Amino acid sequence: MSVIPEEYVDLLQSQALAHVATIGPKGEPQTNPNWFHWDGMYILLTQTKSRQKYHNVRRDPRVALSIVDPTNPYRYLEVRGKVICVDEDKDLAFINSMAKKYLGLDAFLWHLPGDERVVIVIQPEHTTSQSTEKDSPLEKKGC
Amino acid sequence: MSVIPEEYVDLLQSQALAHVATIGPKGEPQTNPNWFHWDGMYILLTQTKSRQKYHNVRRDPRVALSIVDPTNPYRYLEVRGKVICVDEDKDLAFINSMAKKYLGLDAFLWHLPGDERVVIVIQPEHTTSQSTEKDSPLEKKGC
Repeated sequence: MSVIPEEYVDLLQSQALAHVATIGPKGEPQTNPNWFHWDGMYILLTQTKSRQKYHNVRRDPRVALSIVDPTNPYRYLEVRGKVICVDEDKDLAFINSMAKKYLGLDAFLWHLPGDERVVIVIQPEHTTSQSTEKDSPLEKKGC
Repeated sequence: MSVIPEEYVDLLQSQALAHVATIGPKGEPQTNPNWFHWDGMYILLTQTKSRQKYHNVRRDPRVALSIVDPTNPYRYLEVRGKVICVDEDKDLAFINSMAKKYLGLDAFLWHLPGDERVVIVIQPEHTTSQSTEKDSPLEKKGC
């Protein structure tokens, strides 16, 4: 049973970006936009081992994602959860699927020799959300 | 002298949303989209005292903001910094200015009796960014 509210599943199935917050080495927040995939149970991110986000989630698995409806800036879903595993993406199947989702390409064209690409698997544990019409931005829900 | 790179100032002047990450009571990341104002030195957010984000930044002033170019999803700015003060917004001047910026309204129409509205003032300390053409999403800069 997923913690994702049924009425927000469409955001996880959309091409929206997820702004992913992680905890830096001094306990500080860090965040940037990411491609993501929702498989119905977990949220998956692509990353290389050289990046700060990879090191952050290895040190502290707690993450939060903020996803805004591309068609309504006053509808969003926050997902808090934890990284339960980091899988190798040796055959690049996952990054290629991300290029398909976001760019319509059959393969990700910017893989560099030496990039060690991984799949970060996030288990959602809690959500907050807001869903309002564009002219009523402050009617909060679930916050 | 601001730490904001000159070539990203336009994002801070845009109507983009800032996805603001804060630290929750157990040291975990929390994040959601926010209206914001950049005054050339500080980033200002509106908030009510009842909200989790207000309590978070009172406890731990460290924040991170992720802002994507509304016209190019592969151009973004992350600003890390700290909340240096929380001012009262008793006459609602600031929230009204936010309604003007984002909704084109002269006043914010959803203020509720009892809402104690404040202005969260953030001093930027560090940035990361990416600016690429849409067909070359992984050419990173400054990360």
